[in-house]
Amino acid sequence: MIAYFGPQGTFTEQAARGLIPDGEFLPAETIFAALNAVRDGRAEAACVPVENSVEGPVNATLDGLTESTVLVAVAETILPVQFSVLVRQDASDIRTVASHPHALAQVRQWLATNLPEAEQVPTSSTAAAAQAVRRGEYDAAVTASVAAQHYELREFVGGIADLADASTRFLLVRRPGRLPEPTGADRTSLMAVTVNRTGALAELLTELSFRGINLTRLDARPAKTHIGQYRFFVDMEGHIAEPRIGDAVAALRRRCSVRFLGSHPRADHAPSSGEPPVGNEDFVAATNWLESVRRGESV
Amino acid sequence: MIAYFGPQGTFTEQAARGLIPDGEFLPAETIFAALNAVRDGRAEAACVPVENSVEGPVNATLDGLTESTVLVAVAETILPVQFSVLVRQDASDIRTVASHPHALAQVRQWLATNLPEAEQVPTSSTAAAAQAVRRGEYDAAVTASVAAQHYELREFVGGIADLADASTRFLLVRRPGRLPEPTGADRTSLMAVTVNRTGALAELLTELSFRGINLTRLDARPAKTHIGQYRFFVDMEGHIAEPRIGDAVAALRRRCSVRFLGSHPRADHAPSSGEPPVGNEDFVAATNWLESVRRGESV
Repeated sequence: MIAYFGPQGTFTEQAARGLIPDGEFLPAETIFAALNAVRDGRAEAACVPVENSVEGPVNATLDGLTESTVLVAVAETILPVQFSVLVRQDASDIRTVASHPHALAQVRQWLATNLPEAEQVPTSSTAAAAQAVRRGEYDAAVTASVAAQHYELREFVGGIADLADASTRFLLVRRPGRLPEPTGADRTSLMAVTVNRTGALAELLTELSFRGINLTRLDARPAKTHIGQYRFFVDMEGHIAEPRIGDAVAALRRRCSVRFLGSHPRADHAPSSGEPPVGNEDFVAATNWLESVRRGESV
Repeated sequence: MIAYFGPQGTFTEQAARGLIPDGEFLPAETIFAALNAVRDGRAEAACVPVENSVEGPVNATLDGLTESTVLVAVAETILPVQFSVLVRQDASDIRTVASHPHALAQVRQWLATNLPEAEQVPTSSTAAAAQAVRRGEYDAAVTASVAAQHYELREFVGGIADLADASTRFLLVRRPGRLPEPTGADRTSLMAVTVNRTGALAELLTELSFRGINLTRLDARPAKTHIGQYRFFVDMEGHIAEPRIGDAVAALRRRCSVRFLGSHPRADHAPSSGEPPVGNEDFVAATNWLESVRRGESV
């Protein structure tokens, strides 16, 4: 069973079906509920959104991955953000348009140009907007195209997006276990909590950059106590099974509190950017050399 | 005229009145509209939320400060987040509770304990929720206490918050001009855009930490093109008029694109953390020494 942030007809369902084509699926009302279905064993994995190219990180996912027991990402997928405007079969005027605030933000210009008089109504998800249109509460919903089938609505217009390149990245997370094999185009994610001291974050990032490791994302989330206390979410190119990535993650672990959030293939299959100054084979060679010196062989 | 992110009765109005007690105030429908009222001269300053200790950065403010002409922060204030539940004078049952999603998130536990059956309805602002309750659309609104007076509602309960220490920081921004004087407890803000290269961010942060400059905030916002392209928002302790802060900001400017977003007194009056290894007087002495050496005096 694969839990996902539902209800039916969201982009997250579309992402989950793309990641596990022959799965059985369990919609969950919130991101926390989807993650907890994995924690308590009702689902073997959960699909949740983690990052959007326009709105940034999905806070509920970052918080949900760190505020209870450990879950690790084992796969990801990236979907282009293209919305449909759905209406009832017999629709005429569109005076109200409902959707999740993130979705409304991503078609702001399109709505201003094409439906300038329509009132915009925030809902808890794009699918909740489709349901409300089905019930006759609002005239139109901005949703994933898949929602038209689930809720028997008509596509007034499809494929709309203010920014042609907008996309959302989704994770498939499981309870800790055997990690996916390295593929040469992987991503490793972790959460670090440092002391509030001058240079603490610079030192963490320098541990990575000195080893030629490129970040793909760095987000600071409040630790939810005082303003100025943060958790840092770091995504880097590479797999923790690689010697240089493992060496770097261990170095971070010596300096601060670290939670490992997964190593898995990148959805875009992009290999690591550039040749690192010190590669995996150099780490292996240096370790072997050190051991031989310590054994008194001094080669 | 001071523009603020309205409508009337929001925490932002409360913050604006605290910053400019004798001001005239202009509510604006969005954060963008409040900022643009300053840009086009209708207001001399705008008050906008920038950071919340639970939800993190206010994306619309960060984007709004960087996606048009330059505005600079000249003051800040921090308000504790304590909500009231407002109802109509004749209210009995509470079956629906409306508020902005950020406000609902911050009283999630309180609602689960005290109004577990009530449906939660997202609105575009806390004050919009109060207006909807006034019109009879919903039974209760989660808002700032000030809204009870504006909308003739009754406080069902006040002073509620899941986290006792939750707070929001607000900025007062103006068009560029004379900067506030340094006070010894200041904050400097800027936005940096680096090339996507291994170590680029580590180098920027090291420029600051080598000069003993402490960060109070670092946020990455998508540049809204491809996933993986970011703008970094950096807040640091100190004032750009100080030699060591100026030296650091100029060093960043040599490495990447930088937009200065203001130097102003900290609302918490906290002095810089710790004694920097190299202080302002050392910067002045070193500059004077270099000039004398170049003049051939070699002192």
